[in-house]
Amino acid sequence: MSAIDFTLLKKDAGSNARLGSLTTPHGTIPTPIFMPVGTQATVKAMTPEELREVGAQIILGNTYHLYIRPGHELVRRMGGLHRFMHWDGPILTDSGGFQVFSLGELRKIREEGVTFQSHLDGSYHMISPEISIAIQEALGADITMCFDECPPYPADRSYLARSLAMTTRWAKRCKEAKSRDDQALFGIVQGGMHRDLREQSAHELQEIGFDGYALGGLSVGEEKERMYEVLEFASPFLPVDRPRYVMGIGAPEDLIEGIYHGFDMFDCVMPTRNARNGMLFTSAGRINIKGAVYAEDEGAIDPECDCYVCRNYSRAYLRHLYRAGEILASRLNTWHNLHYYISLMAKAREAIAADRYSEFRQEFYAKRQGLGTGD
Amino acid sequence: MSAIDFTLLKKDAGSNARLGSLTTPHGTIPTPIFMPVGTQATVKAMTPEELREVGAQIILGNTYHLYIRPGHELVRRMGGLHRFMHWDGPILTDSGGFQVFSLGELRKIREEGVTFQSHLDGSYHMISPEISIAIQEALGADITMCFDECPPYPADRSYLARSLAMTTRWAKRCKEAKSRDDQALFGIVQGGMHRDLREQSAHELQEIGFDGYALGGLSVGEEKERMYEVLEFASPFLPVDRPRYVMGIGAPEDLIEGIYHGFDMFDCVMPTRNARNGMLFTSAGRINIKGAVYAEDEGAIDPECDCYVCRNYSRAYLRHLYRAGEILASRLNTWHNLHYYISLMAKAREAIAADRYSEFRQEFYAKRQGLGTGD
Repeated sequence: MSAIDFTLLKKDAGSNARLGSLTTPHGTIPTPIFMPVGTQATVKAMTPEELREVGAQIILGNTYHLYIRPGHELVRRMGGLHRFMHWDGPILTDSGGFQVFSLGELRKIREEGVTFQSHLDGSYHMISPEISIAIQEALGADITMCFDECPPYPADRSYLARSLAMTTRWAKRCKEAKSRDDQALFGIVQGGMHRDLREQSAHELQEIGFDGYALGGLSVGEEKERMYEVLEFASPFLPVDRPRYVMGIGAPEDLIEGIYHGFDMFDCVMPTRNARNGMLFTSAGRINIKGAVYAEDEGAIDPECDCYVCRNYSRAYLRHLYRAGEILASRLNTWHNLHYYISLMAKAREAIAADRYSEFRQEFYAKRQGLGTGD
Repeated sequence: MSAIDFTLLKKDAGSNARLGSLTTPHGTIPTPIFMPVGTQATVKAMTPEELREVGAQIILGNTYHLYIRPGHELVRRMGGLHRFMHWDGPILTDSGGFQVFSLGELRKIREEGVTFQSHLDGSYHMISPEISIAIQEALGADITMCFDECPPYPADRSYLARSLAMTTRWAKRCKEAKSRDDQALFGIVQGGMHRDLREQSAHELQEIGFDGYALGGLSVGEEKERMYEVLEFASPFLPVDRPRYVMGIGAPEDLIEGIYHGFDMFDCVMPTRNARNGMLFTSAGRINIKGAVYAEDEGAIDPECDCYVCRNYSRAYLRHLYRAGEILASRLNTWHNLHYYISLMAKAREAIAADRYSEFRQEFYAKRQGLGTGD
């Protein structure tokens, strides 16, 4: 008996895009969906009410960061992550794997788990599959993730194969360690850019059996074309009746491609982090609000957008706030960018419902030719 | 014909506290009132809608900062400060005097005006009474202030007397320079801690005639007792039928004393600035949310407070956000502190209406004995 229930409502007529519904202990959400990242028990610069207002329905928490500060046992004693951060909707927590591997020289990988030094104070810690699950159970997310090794890019095929085998063993240990019935557990498919390794990983994880399946190890420095190739060839390796999640991507076009190839869930810090750097997403591409060209621009960020920011503030004002280093700059920029991402997902779902996802995808690219789309 | 209309509704039976109503081009506000400070065309960390939610009815803008960045002419071209920052309520702008004098070595005072270097890029500028009025007219506030010299503390009596005389001449030049009928202009009473100089200043300003009168040169380093003495002796020098404003104070107790002595308007960065440093105002005194004692405190900041923050977040969560350097920490702390200040003014008005302001003042001090009240 799974803690979640996924219903595949329909498939798009002209692509592999899918429309679904995912029921979790904290509510039902439509898919495809974008999950804003709430690293330290807050989606940076936003209140939960504002997340609702921009249309967010599920958010992500970072196990590594919450383990380091304020500590998962404290969060448990405060009633769990939902109550602690005043968000009553679904939450997904990652396993800590990606963050720990990002520590580079500060960590060591063994079969048992990963030893690492805290990025805050250099103290020594160990996260194993069992500990990752224990932390995620203390946090109390609706959806938890298996502890995996996220290999570097590029990496030797032999390294990738060994890593993948360990990730499978770790996934099995995660499932065995799991004790809460009210949390789902997703497996994470690795294998780099290799089709056969991805297939092997997906197969081994399904042998163990999980509530959903994710692709890990993408958006780690590879060319976009390679990422899209993996999305295309790996999607059929995953079961049709379970949610499919691509971890840590990406730019709006990456989500468009992910949906096209049949993925349902996405998360990325791009809309929130870039907002704090003044980079804003619009239907015509990206702009950087720092630009002198916006100094006396009375227009909204995106003339096609109806979010709170675009209804009430000019580019001139937003540029002023950014240059003055005001907190309101981060707030309004984050608000708009999250609204952009989440609205894009809503439009994608409408397109799938109308069997016109391929046209929608073409229109998305056509509109953006006026402005830059690169990173 | 004044751009504003002040109605004295009643005086408290047991003190000099007054209840009033001030009508401005952007709405009518009750007095006594606290004005949140929006230095750079934003009350730091707050949206205008949130300012409304915490009960703010009038805000302050800083002429010096807006002149330096983004520039008053830009604000004028963007439709004035109200439209630029999306605040449709009353605004008061200071004259730039206090900020310019705060620049210390970077400025030189002459009869004509003050030359100074920008704190941002070191560029040279001059603000005279005429230029201050021109800037404030471009910004378009409902209430503007005369350009005055804010003398240092302590200062020789002879310096204060000369300074005061120049401030009077500058006030006259401000009134003569004023060209907009839809803006009020307040005079600023100087004279340090000297009763006779304050009386002279108040008298000379009334000879010129202003829409309201402010006390300047307080909260500049003097003992609280001295400040309260000035509030007590200077209040009767001001006309009964015009709003009385004490500039730049202060702590909650300073507002309580100011109201007690018959003042109507207050502004201070304390609730917003201290919030960003983790200092929170409660009915029992001040707390610093950084404290380890709050690590697992599930209670609200102030059990007597019904603001959004106190209804939804624990001290434990607010401490975590603060320690993690999250933007939401500044937001929620600012929200609560502004709510505290503005609610305190609302309660003061209720007490005056019920002829029990002295009791209210005593209760205010009695409640705070549990926690520290000092700076």
